[in-house]
Amino acid sequence: MTDDADARRLAWVYLSRVVEGPCPALSALIDRIGVTEAARAVRECDLPESLRSATELRRGTDCAERDLDLVARLGGRALTPDDVEWPSWRMLALGQLDATRDRSAAVPLVLWVRGPLSLPDATEQALAVVGARCSSGYGEQVAADIAGDLAGQGWTIVSGAAFGIDGTAHRAALAAGGTTVAVLGCGVDRPYPAQHERLLAEIAEYGLVVSEYPPGTTAHKHHFLARNRLIAALSDGVLVVEAGMRSGARNTVKWARRLGRPALAVPGPVTSAASVGCHRMIREGEALLVTRAEEVVDETGPLRLAVPDRAVAADETPDGDEGLVYAALPQVGSRLPAHLAADSGLPLATVRAALPALELAGLVGSDPSGWFRLTRTERLVR
Amino acid sequence: MTDDADARRLAWVYLSRVVEGPCPALSALIDRIGVTEAARAVRECDLPESLRSATELRRGTDCAERDLDLVARLGGRALTPDDVEWPSWRMLALGQLDATRDRSAAVPLVLWVRGPLSLPDATEQALAVVGARCSSGYGEQVAADIAGDLAGQGWTIVSGAAFGIDGTAHRAALAAGGTTVAVLGCGVDRPYPAQHERLLAEIAEYGLVVSEYPPGTTAHKHHFLARNRLIAALSDGVLVVEAGMRSGARNTVKWARRLGRPALAVPGPVTSAASVGCHRMIREGEALLVTRAEEVVDETGPLRLAVPDRAVAADETPDGDEGLVYAALPQVGSRLPAHLAADSGLPLATVRAALPALELAGLVGSDPSGWFRLTRTERLVR
Repeated sequence: MTDDADARRLAWVYLSRVVEGPCPALSALIDRIGVTEAARAVRECDLPESLRSATELRRGTDCAERDLDLVARLGGRALTPDDVEWPSWRMLALGQLDATRDRSAAVPLVLWVRGPLSLPDATEQALAVVGARCSSGYGEQVAADIAGDLAGQGWTIVSGAAFGIDGTAHRAALAAGGTTVAVLGCGVDRPYPAQHERLLAEIAEYGLVVSEYPPGTTAHKHHFLARNRLIAALSDGVLVVEAGMRSGARNTVKWARRLGRPALAVPGPVTSAASVGCHRMIREGEALLVTRAEEVVDETGPLRLAVPDRAVAADETPDGDEGLVYAALPQVGSRLPAHLAADSGLPLATVRAALPALELAGLVGSDPSGWFRLTRTERLVR
Repeated sequence: MTDDADARRLAWVYLSRVVEGPCPALSALIDRIGVTEAARAVRECDLPESLRSATELRRGTDCAERDLDLVARLGGRALTPDDVEWPSWRMLALGQLDATRDRSAAVPLVLWVRGPLSLPDATEQALAVVGARCSSGYGEQVAADIAGDLAGQGWTIVSGAAFGIDGTAHRAALAAGGTTVAVLGCGVDRPYPAQHERLLAEIAEYGLVVSEYPPGTTAHKHHFLARNRLIAALSDGVLVVEAGMRSGARNTVKWARRLGRPALAVPGPVTSAASVGCHRMIREGEALLVTRAEEVVDETGPLRLAVPDRAVAADETPDGDEGLVYAALPQVGSRLPAHLAADSGLPLATVRAALPALELAGLVGSDPSGWFRLTRTERLVR
């Protein structure tokens, strides 16, 4: 690792500890002046008013090296946006959100990770399965059936490791020999809930345990709301199996919708309090009704990004991996990512990272048949 | 009764027996030449080709007087479109359908009725509750809860007297001391299914048993499909409580949608075969998900008619009851039917019959706040 890369890494980790969770104003500063310069500005309190209070509490504490040691001793690692293992295309929609509407609308600075898998690979095809902590036997059966079916078909099951539906979904994925990712609202070294210590250890052994909170961070209510956006962002869709009237699952569904991911809900007996939230979301058009794994697959098509309106200035030829992927697209007609990977010789994950970037640059478009080049005129009218 | 009225009555009843069920071509002929002349034309086979085969089997049998005697001896009666008890406004949307798309798309010629209530009064505020014959304990509980709740609030429960959900809904309405209407696919003298003989007798004692098939007509499969349009037409909305994959309830929902009535479905456990059809209808946007009586009331607003596009030629002032209702509407602002009834001194049922007629004439419009006069300009742009 070069000195510069090392300095950037320590800067990301330092800032992750200072703000503990998403901070759109800091993300904007990093975009503007770079991460090492932003870390210096925070450290020296050379900041606009809006960032002073957000960084006040912990800007004096730089324990980046210690944090990196700590997570390494747990067998984990810190991923930053500079790392090849950073799930770039999963985070794209999150970076496009209007941060003035929600203080959680920001890409995480660091993802703290435990487990043997690559995060982008593990979330290549992923479904979030979330729901009531006070689940019923019915809900647990349905969650286990759907999560187990899809895990057996190669889908990764993402959830929040909570009691009830979350835990059931993780366990079903593990039992099916599939992949599961737990996204926490506390440090990856904290077993939360404590009764799920063994489950979390098992997920860290075969899947991934992920958090944007530095090691040692304890669980807080507002962490879970921010955490829910990562559950949605790391998945192709969010499935709610049971939800009471005031369930946190509805917050995850809200994030799914903001990020352009399909939100799905399983109905249940109208006599069951554990299904009230699902029925409400279906009734109010917030979630689509699904009853089994096949219907989940039908609804959870290729990830569709919410591309913001913007003037298209792209006329340059893309370079690097994006250039290779662009070159692999035919002049006329469309190609699926798998074909583009075969044609370009690039890994599928790289192709899937390049395509949305090309789309944001106004160079390509997609429809159910695949991805295609936009002509100059099409680019201008979009 | 005048000789002319008597002749018309016998003509309707004769034709009802000849065609047994809806016959759009005959309805069109009646519209064109009047019912007595149409009866003569059928009797003498002075008919266009399209009507010859439809009337072939029974045009030689005129037992209208005997049929009227028969139904009178059962304590019943025959309603024709000439009768004040004819549910005119309930039949309006049926008369507007495109008959070339469906040979059942016609207003019935006669409604054979048993029971102590007036049909338009009984269906003033009505919900159809239909569903699986092979219902589960869960479905029966929910059907009974919702039908009982609404019957207790003054809603009439309309259904088809079949096993399962239909029977449960009728029984719940009776048990709540409410009104229920059974619409049959056979003569009102035939207990079908036979095991529901006592239930049908009870409905005929406290509510209404209705059919467009003359006394003695036996149940046929295609009768039920045509019968379903009357269940939808006589109601403000259709609620399906349970439905298997190939349930007849879906056909009733189809009619509800064609007639502009809201279609509603109750979800259930995804593990129950009896809820598969409901989930499918919700999933495919054919029915709205509802879980309890309040939500049914929310969705089943004032009857909305599907007004066909037509050039508006109406400039004359309406007369009769329609004129009184029109006069009761303010120059600016809207009124609810109940207020119009109070202001005009007309019965509510008359007001509700007049308003859609005024709407069809292009003179009034409605929105959730009530009914209002259209200005000359609005009439022209509609």
